[in-house]
Amino acid sequence: MSLIVAGTVRVPPENLAGLKPRMADMIAASRAEDGCLDYNYAEDVNQPGLIHVFERWRDQAALDVHFTTDHLARWRAAWPSFGVSDRKLFAYEVSSERPL
Amino acid sequence: MSLIVAGTVRVPPENLAGLKPRMADMIAASRAEDGCLDYNYAEDVNQPGLIHVFERWRDQAALDVHFTTDHLARWRAAWPSFGVSDRKLFAYEVSSERPL
Repeated sequence: MSLIVAGTVRVPPENLAGLKPRMADMIAASRAEDGCLDYNYAEDVNQPGLIHVFERWRDQAALDVHFTTDHLARWRAAWPSFGVSDRKLFAYEVSSERPL
Repeated sequence: MSLIVAGTVRVPPENLAGLKPRMADMIAASRAEDGCLDYNYAEDVNQPGLIHVFERWRDQAALDVHFTTDHLARWRAAWPSFGVSDRKLFAYEVSSERPL
């Protein structure tokens, strides 16, 4: 069963430009992982600094490996210096999908 | 079983500021619908004009009603004048969720 990971973190809007290269590294490294189907960060169109996270993973095992990676550790280690806060993420088990 | 609707549309970056009030209207009206659990638009942090859509609905019936609403019709009617294109949306049936 595949998984969607979705939710938000907050970044002070003035720090976002500096954080974007770190985000790009994290996105690229995560997408390269076995079992990563989708990995995106996007800024809310009406709430500056509210970052929407959207990930899809083949299965729980792939997500488990993701949490052990060096790029995730580097990403999280960068949070305090950029003021990243309010992590609210949820994992959804997906039983079917279809184009809409 | 709840549903996630997720995917992307594209907007010419120079049109996004003009489209944001329409987006805000669509978001507010959709969130006010019975059975809407989440409704967001967000711009990719590294690809200007790539808009990530994320919605959660209580069930298929709620999503079915959403597709009949006036606010959805108005939103879609605005697309040509703002150059909105490349709609790629998927519906995911969710069998469980948990904080991550």
